[in-house]
Amino acid sequence: MPTQTFIESEPLLAERRALCRVVGELAAQGWCQGTGGNFSVTLDQGPLRLLITRSGVHKRHLAPEGLMVIGPAGRPVEGETGRPSAEALLHAEIVAATGAGSVLHVHSVPNTLLGEHFAAPGGFVLRGYEMLKGLEGITTHETEVFVPVLRNSQDMTALAAEVAGLLVEQPGLHGFLLAGHGLYAWGASLDQAHRHVEIFEFLFECAARRTPFEPFTGL
Amino acid sequence: MPTQTFIESEPLLAERRALCRVVGELAAQGWCQGTGGNFSVTLDQGPLRLLITRSGVHKRHLAPEGLMVIGPAGRPVEGETGRPSAEALLHAEIVAATGAGSVLHVHSVPNTLLGEHFAAPGGFVLRGYEMLKGLEGITTHETEVFVPVLRNSQDMTALAAEVAGLLVEQPGLHGFLLAGHGLYAWGASLDQAHRHVEIFEFLFECAARRTPFEPFTGL
Amino acid sequence: MPTQTFIESEPLLAERRALCRVVGELAAQGWCQGTGGNFSVTLDQGPLRLLITRSGVHKRHLAPEGLMVIGPAGRPVEGETGRPSAEALLHAEIVAATGAGSVLHVHSVPNTLLGEHFAAPGGFVLRGYEMLKGLEGITTHETEVFVPVLRNSQDMTALAAEVAGLLVEQPGLHGFLLAGHGLYAWGASLDQAHRHVEIFEFLFECAARRTPFEPFTGL
Amino acid sequence: MPTQTFIESEPLLAERRALCRVVGELAAQGWCQGTGGNFSVTLDQGPLRLLITRSGVHKRHLAPEGLMVIGPAGRPVEGETGRPSAEALLHAEIVAATGAGSVLHVHSVPNTLLGEHFAAPGGFVLRGYEMLKGLEGITTHETEVFVPVLRNSQDMTALAAEVAGLLVEQPGLHGFLLAGHGLYAWGASLDQAHRHVEIFEFLFECAARRTPFEPFTGL
Repeated sequence: MPTQTFIESEPLLAERRALCRVVGELAAQGWCQGTGGNFSVTLDQGPLRLLITRSGVHKRHLAPEGLMVIGPAGRPVEGETGRPSAEALLHAEIVAATGAGSVLHVHSVPNTLLGEHFAAPGGFVLRGYEMLKGLEGITTHETEVFVPVLRNSQDMTALAAEVAGLLVEQPGLHGFLLAGHGLYAWGASLDQAHRHVEIFEFLFECAARRTPFEPFTGL
Repeated sequence: MPTQTFIESEPLLAERRALCRVVGELAAQGWCQGTGGNFSVTLDQGPLRLLITRSGVHKRHLAPEGLMVIGPAGRPVEGETGRPSAEALLHAEIVAATGAGSVLHVHSVPNTLLGEHFAAPGGFVLRGYEMLKGLEGITTHETEVFVPVLRNSQDMTALAAEVAGLLVEQPGLHGFLLAGHGLYAWGASLDQAHRHVEIFEFLFECAARRTPFEPFTGL
Repeated sequence: MPTQTFIESEPLLAERRALCRVVGELAAQGWCQGTGGNFSVTLDQGPLRLLITRSGVHKRHLAPEGLMVIGPAGRPVEGETGRPSAEALLHAEIVAATGAGSVLHVHSVPNTLLGEHFAAPGGFVLRGYEMLKGLEGITTHETEVFVPVLRNSQDMTALAAEVAGLLVEQPGLHGFLLAGHGLYAWGASLDQAHRHVEIFEFLFECAARRTPFEPFTGL
Repeated sequence: MPTQTFIESEPLLAERRALCRVVGELAAQGWCQGTGGNFSVTLDQGPLRLLITRSGVHKRHLAPEGLMVIGPAGRPVEGETGRPSAEALLHAEIVAATGAGSVLHVHSVPNTLLGEHFAAPGGFVLRGYEMLKGLEGITTHETEVFVPVLRNSQDMTALAAEVAGLLVEQPGLHGFLLAGHGLYAWGASLDQAHRHVEIFEFLFECAARRTPFEPFTGL
């Protein structure tokens, strides 16, 4: 089946619009500044097919044509033109490992600062907050959610391998941070992934307001 | 009278739309992240009938069908499908105790942090601010408003009993916090309850900016 | 000339719409929470006639009918129904003393906190910021702008007298704070008053981020 | 060719609309309070022709007629009425030195505070953040971006000369700060300049949250 048919079919247009709507809401909260962030929904688990944001598009006004279809290893499927987000490979890795229906990656000031601050210990624990219940499977505030922080890297292959390792070790995750970079969060559906991003970001702001960050010297 | 008739009547549609409009404004301020928050207007005081948000609906785009009618003890009335908010019982309790025309429950970063910080003493006092006059019955800034903080719990029956006790002890309240969870505020009308939420949140941000929160260690 | 004619004339409708637009923009920035704030444009300097917001109306969706006409001493003109803002007298006093074309009063978190913090010394100095040039008559950042802080009071007659005294002593003012209450700012026109509010609030946030506020203990 | 023709031609209308859209988005983020900020796109590099915001116009609702065409030294071209932004000369200087397709100047609380704080050392270094890759030509977070801070001045000729000197010494810049004043950022295109502003402001907020600013005493 040629990609062409796939793209023009009604269901895919609906997926495109749904993703654009969610990304627009994330961008409106300041989490996609300067064309930042990348976002996908899963079309097929096997062989893997993801609808994902193209590189360099500003997310505040994302339109259906700002999305493209990629396959395994984050490579564009046959018939697709243009370049996917540089981090398409991470999306593919996360979907392969978790079966996620959507992966959302945002940059916020709190997630950038917390990732930087907690890079050395490799993560931090959130506990005691009711909003933790917004993460799928959590039914009480009396819980501890570990947010892993991976060192940032421009070597996507190495980073994807590290992510794959993390997801094997900690199978129940809904998200992780890249240090000084941002949040990857996912869910069984686009709505669930969206909810997870908002929950994490809310809790990150709570944590960031209480965190004694290392003073910025400008040197 | 079957619920069906009730739901399709003009007055109830107006109530649904009014509640959706208010909830949309609250959500736009970041107080309902990740499907958080729940909201009701009182249709009848006795027997109790509340129009309340369904569980799991995102509040940013709440539509009339995202609401349902519950009766005493927060149970759906006959003919209603779906699940009300988990905390419907608290709404019913508050309306029963205070005669409130509307109960609004929001999660904000300041209300989460202040609730957590002041859980041990069981509350905190706001004083000296002009905006306190936005709370019904207060006519001068030279006043003290105590904001009770109850320990959070997943046992809604126990929590509802605790809330009932609080409302007997302190009958003049317009709201309280659940520690690390959020604000419950109410008023004689939907507009008054809305005003109370905005007043509390404004004052919470004032207080939070001055509060020496316990440093977040991530451990 | 009966007020009726005045109200229905085209020019006044234009003034109403202009004021509603400005107030809507101020409210969208969070400066009129909980029906807070009051706002006027001057229709006539003598005898004084102001178009001013009615009491208790939420400013986020202010409509032309949410405004009314008052005369000297802040009293409704003949034919007007309803109650003006409690602080209408202050508007009248400011217009009488300065010839302002518009007076705008907003509550923001920084203006509330700075007013509270600097109540004892009676004000604070802003200096060195380019944005000071947004205040009429200031042409360089190398200037000092004193922001007076008056003690808050519910006695509007006493407060109006204090404001009148202040405006005689410091004739070049564009605004002042009431401690723990908010900002009064004005200008020769509605647009200038609007600009002054935005300039003050920008500079207040700059100052507030640097101010060592007294810790909030909740006691 | 008379300016008149130029202004009414379709391409220039498109440029006006594009610039209005970008400025509106910047203003919506609070970076153009009180008519602050000025913005240009380059129509011709030689002889220099810039489309630039008129002085005193609020940027939140910028319309095509709020723009005008200037030539070398920031002077209005023949046929143009009105006054360009006071800082038009700086725009002209930056375009002449860098070949920028657009220059955007915004005031934000973090850029004002950081400029003030780092005026003495003459700038500060941003490092380690993924978002640095949003600046053209940067391909890794493992980099250092120096943000120069020039002393603010009302002498535009002197300031323009200083800017010209800076751009010769540090040819790879995408922006600089004026102390206590704001950010100048530019790019090869309007979209790139827009992206650079958002990237800088994001990183400024990250830095500002970690900066131990000198306490504000109000004296």
